[in-house]
Amino acid sequence: MRATLIYGAGDVRVEHVPDPKLAENTDAIVRVLRGCICGSDLWPYGSRPATDVGDRMGHEFLGVIEELGSEVSGLRAGDVVVAPFAWADNTCDFCREGLQTSCRNGGVWGRQLDGGQGEAVRVPQAQGTLVKLPVGEDSELLPSLLTLSDVFSTGHHCAVTAGVNPRTTVTVIGDGAVGLSAVLAAHRLGAERIILMGRHQARTDLGRQFGATDVVSERGDEGIEKVRELTGGDGTHTVLECVGLKPAIEAAFEVVRSGGVVSRVGVPHYSDVPMDFNLFRRNVTLTGGVAPARAYIEELMPDILDGTLNPGLVFDQTVGLDGVPAGYRAMADREALKVMITP
Amino acid sequence: MRATLIYGAGDVRVEHVPDPKLAENTDAIVRVLRGCICGSDLWPYGSRPATDVGDRMGHEFLGVIEELGSEVSGLRAGDVVVAPFAWADNTCDFCREGLQTSCRNGGVWGRQLDGGQGEAVRVPQAQGTLVKLPVGEDSELLPSLLTLSDVFSTGHHCAVTAGVNPRTTVTVIGDGAVGLSAVLAAHRLGAERIILMGRHQARTDLGRQFGATDVVSERGDEGIEKVRELTGGDGTHTVLECVGLKPAIEAAFEVVRSGGVVSRVGVPHYSDVPMDFNLFRRNVTLTGGVAPARAYIEELMPDILDGTLNPGLVFDQTVGLDGVPAGYRAMADREALKVMITP
Repeated sequence: MRATLIYGAGDVRVEHVPDPKLAENTDAIVRVLRGCICGSDLWPYGSRPATDVGDRMGHEFLGVIEELGSEVSGLRAGDVVVAPFAWADNTCDFCREGLQTSCRNGGVWGRQLDGGQGEAVRVPQAQGTLVKLPVGEDSELLPSLLTLSDVFSTGHHCAVTAGVNPRTTVTVIGDGAVGLSAVLAAHRLGAERIILMGRHQARTDLGRQFGATDVVSERGDEGIEKVRELTGGDGTHTVLECVGLKPAIEAAFEVVRSGGVVSRVGVPHYSDVPMDFNLFRRNVTLTGGVAPARAYIEELMPDILDGTLNPGLVFDQTVGLDGVPAGYRAMADREALKVMITP
Repeated sequence: MRATLIYGAGDVRVEHVPDPKLAENTDAIVRVLRGCICGSDLWPYGSRPATDVGDRMGHEFLGVIEELGSEVSGLRAGDVVVAPFAWADNTCDFCREGLQTSCRNGGVWGRQLDGGQGEAVRVPQAQGTLVKLPVGEDSELLPSLLTLSDVFSTGHHCAVTAGVNPRTTVTVIGDGAVGLSAVLAAHRLGAERIILMGRHQARTDLGRQFGATDVVSERGDEGIEKVRELTGGDGTHTVLECVGLKPAIEAAFEVVRSGGVVSRVGVPHYSDVPMDFNLFRRNVTLTGGVAPARAYIEELMPDILDGTLNPGLVFDQTVGLDGVPAGYRAMADREALKVMITP
């Protein structure tokens, strides 16, 4: 089959690789219907040291079950399924607590294992990992259902861990696909005031469509000042940090209300955060982390199936496998918001 | 009257100062029955630059109302009352949310205002700040009721913000009066496994009396390893950081279980915390802050009045005003756990 590999910064190739085979009785083989490129894929795309052996890429996909290991029950060949970006047995203590990203028998796709940016994937812990989708292979809902794999579930995790509810004001930092998903998730949870910090109008326009009530396009101190102005000087009860860079998390602390919560789902490209005496005095909480997408799929799916939510609008380009390298370039150059792949 | 002032590191004096007088219609004058020295008082005691003008000290006290401003209702002269360590109107939006330390009309004692380590205090926002105690001036419960002013309420805040409940395991870092109070608070909230990290046996013995099930006296990496051993390698669901030094908050992150919460109430003597990719991957939350003691007094008081809890056991020395400088020395030298003052 063909799959995407990365060999170094800027060096993404689509190559022939061995077809996946069942290795454990708990595995499944899934033929990929839709995959996509994640903002987090841009980090290795930007900085990975060059090597002779490539790493398989992709951790978001949905597809059709082709084969099942003997210990997998509840799923059948031909089922359309979505996979969260981390596999999990969904039975260990962490999974039962809804933290499938810390599953005692879990892991993530890619590197020397199959990734989602290819024709098929061997799925470990298939019974715990895969969720059956009640749609056909040609459903128009596939793009939105694909977002359950990562990006919309990640936005939802950010809003949930921040404690967003109808009584909380919200600032979302970042107008990438995760930030816009966080806007949609906060809106779904009932937040009436959602301030989106972002400066790309096409993106912030989608943010407004997703529920943002205010857009702050100013950057740095000006942007912080603007959020404060909009909130009577107080900042918002919750801040959803969807970037992962140091200035973003620093800005989050500047616009959070005393007693409020900063939740971060942007993969952190910093090691320290400024949780100093002032934030201590103000009782500010920092939460969030890598999203246990598996915990949220059943909860979020109905709103997609009945058309209430359309998180798939974050995909503004679609490519075949041949177009994957160009898709990476488009996202890195911010010409595309998020690229979907139809292998 | 006489009151305690600090003029520089190690330089605490008890001097004659003007008697307090009502300044606002919302004030009260309280004659102090019991005050005490806080671990946080040791920070200026250790490092305050020397000046000619001293700062008044003390922020924990209970006493008898002597005079009331014309706008204060619900209290009467002669009432025995306790004051939280921050005053607050108890009516603003922050107060209604239980964050009286961020009250829009609040503040803290000391500096150029009266402190609690003196004969009397002018209490701003008296109606919102003071809580009537249903005891007499000679009650044996005064030491325990005094802890509602700060130390026990602070331990409780740490446990509450960490989310301690009967299903959470707990590590408490620090065997000072706040750490021991956090043990007691966690025990009160139903935690069945409470690991106390501390190395002064008299203190950890009191910790066991307060509900600690395990004591880890090893320091540094050895202590971290010991907590992990005790928890099957996972760490505990909650970690109550009651020290405020960088190694303590760093250790907290090393012993917290994935998906768990570190709550900090030790006044931070650091500006950054290491919330890096690993803690992001593990979905670790950092919460806590300065305790809104006022929010907890009514809830905690009954357990003291009926003898269920005796948080006043943290006081192991009592001095008169003349003994306050020696009390500071005793606490700084770790000869005393916490010093009570009977002016």
